[in-house]
Amino acid sequence: MSTVATPAAGPLALIAGAGRLPGEVAAELTRRGEDLVVLPLTGIADDDFSAFRSSSIDLFDPLNALAALRRAGARGVVMAGAVHRPGIRLLLQGWQAVLHGEEIRKIIQGGDDNVMRGVVDYLEANGFPVIGLREAAPQLMARQGLLCGVAPEQAAADVACGFDVLQRLGPADIGQALVVAALRVLAVEAAEGTDAMIRRVQILRRRGLIGRLQRAGRPPLPERRGGVLVKGAKPSQDFRVDLPVIGPRTVRLAAAAGLSGIAIEAGAVLVVDREATLAAAQRAGLFILGVER
Amino acid sequence: MSTVATPAAGPLALIAGAGRLPGEVAAELTRRGEDLVVLPLTGIADDDFSAFRSSSIDLFDPLNALAALRRAGARGVVMAGAVHRPGIRLLLQGWQAVLHGEEIRKIIQGGDDNVMRGVVDYLEANGFPVIGLREAAPQLMARQGLLCGVAPEQAAADVACGFDVLQRLGPADIGQALVVAALRVLAVEAAEGTDAMIRRVQILRRRGLIGRLQRAGRPPLPERRGGVLVKGAKPSQDFRVDLPVIGPRTVRLAAAAGLSGIAIEAGAVLVVDREATLAAAQRAGLFILGVER
Repeated sequence: MSTVATPAAGPLALIAGAGRLPGEVAAELTRRGEDLVVLPLTGIADDDFSAFRSSSIDLFDPLNALAALRRAGARGVVMAGAVHRPGIRLLLQGWQAVLHGEEIRKIIQGGDDNVMRGVVDYLEANGFPVIGLREAAPQLMARQGLLCGVAPEQAAADVACGFDVLQRLGPADIGQALVVAALRVLAVEAAEGTDAMIRRVQILRRRGLIGRLQRAGRPPLPERRGGVLVKGAKPSQDFRVDLPVIGPRTVRLAAAAGLSGIAIEAGAVLVVDREATLAAAQRAGLFILGVER
Repeated sequence: MSTVATPAAGPLALIAGAGRLPGEVAAELTRRGEDLVVLPLTGIADDDFSAFRSSSIDLFDPLNALAALRRAGARGVVMAGAVHRPGIRLLLQGWQAVLHGEEIRKIIQGGDDNVMRGVVDYLEANGFPVIGLREAAPQLMARQGLLCGVAPEQAAADVACGFDVLQRLGPADIGQALVVAALRVLAVEAAEGTDAMIRRVQILRRRGLIGRLQRAGRPPLPERRGGVLVKGAKPSQDFRVDLPVIGPRTVRLAAAAGLSGIAIEAGAVLVVDREATLAAAQRAGLFILGVER
C-alpha cells in the first residue's frame, strides 16, 4: 500500500456505525461549522443521515469505502458507533479480496482492537488520516462537574482515591476503570472490560462479601449501597481505536451493583446516548461526575 | 478486658483449625525445638495431634479456650488452619456469653477478617500475644527459587512485570495477586479473592478474548496457554489475620485457566498442603517459583 497525498482542505468524512453516537457526532461537527460528509455503514448504521450530505458505504468492501472517501475529497476520517462481532467477521472476509494474506493475518491477529487498528492503518496508508473522536469532537467528551444527581459526601474521597489508583496503574497499561467504596478498591478492570468488572461488585454485594474488607479505624464499608465507578483514559489510550465510554448499560449495571455514582475523566470519556444515560442515572438515583485529572 | 501479664517463658500454643497446615506447623515448630502445646479445635481440626502435648478446646467457648491457654502457661499463640463459615457463626453465638454487645458488634461488623481480628484482639487483651505464621514458622513460607517445574523463557519477564504492578498497587491496599501474560496484566485481584480472579482468566480464555489485548510490536499474547499467577503480600498485610497462601485448589484453577505457572513472594506466601500442591503442579505441568522481592 502506498501513501497517497490527501487534500489539506475538503470535508471530514464520518464513518457511521450502530447506535446513537454517530448522529450525535454528526450534529456536533455540523454545529461547529465543519464541512462534513457522512458515510453510514450499510446494514449497521442505525441513525438517519438524510439531513446530511451522505453516501452509504459497505464495510465489507474496502475498495468501495476508499472510492467513496476519494469521491468526497475527504481530508480525514472520523469513525463513530459500534460494529458488532458478526460484522467484524464479515468485514474480514470482504477485506481478503483486497489485502494480502500477511496483512490480513496482522489485522485479525488479536481480535477486535486489532481489527480497528488494521482499519485505521489501511485508511491512513491510503491517504486518509483517522482522527479520534476526542480530537474531532471534544465537546462530546464529558465536561468537568456534575452531569447529573448529587454526589454524597463520601464520594469525593472515593473519587480521588480511584483516580489515584488508576494513575498508579497507568504505566502497566491497565486501569481504565475501578470501583471504590469507603476508600477501598473493590474491583479493578484489566482484560475483562468495565461491564464485567461492575458485575463482579454486584456479585460481591449480593453475597454479602463487601464487609470482609473492613479495616479497624477505617470508614465503614457500605454493605448495601455505596461506592463509585471511576473511569478514565490510560496513558497509552489510542482514542482512534478504543474510546473510553459510559452509556445507559453502564448506568444500569452500576445501579444493580448498588453504586452511588460514576466519576469519569473530563475530556477523555464519552457519554454515549447521553440523554438515555442521564435519564437512567436520574431514575436510579446515581450521580455522574466529570473530573479533570 | 484487662491486659494480663504473660509468662516470658512457657510453651507456644498452636490453635489448630481444619486442613493439613496445623500438622505441618506443629511438625516444624517441634523440629526447631520449640516448646509446644497444641490446642485442636473440637469438631474443626482434621489432623491427629496425639504425638504432641495437646488439649482440645472449644472455639465456641472462649473462656474454656483462655483457661486452656492459662493451664498450659502459654507465652503466646499461633493460629493455623481454616475455620469455615458455619463455625464462625457458631463462634459468635458462643462469644456472646462472655463479651458485651458493643464488643460483639465490633467483632462481627465486617465479616470473617474482622472475626479473626476480634479473636486476635481478645487473646492479646487477655495476655496471650498472637504470633503470625510468617514469624512463628518462617521455614514454612515459600523459599526463593523453583519449587517445581520449569519456567518458560517468557515467564521471567511476566513475573517481574507482575511484582512491579503489585508494588504500584500496594499503597492502595490491594494487589495481593494478579495474572500476567506476555507483559499484559489480564486480571487484578481486589475484593473478589485470588480464586475468583483466576477463574476470570479461564473465562476470558474460553471466550477467546485474551488476544483482544494484543498491541502492535508487543510479544504475542498466548491465546491457549501461557501466563503466570503472581501473588505476594500487601504492605499492610497482617499475617496474624490474613496469610497469603496457595494450595492444591490454586494450582487446579491456574491449570484450568491455561496458566504456565505460579510465582509467589518468597518468605511471605505459604504453600498449604505442600505435597499435594506440588504434586498437582507437576501433573498439570505448572511451575511454582519463589521470588525474593
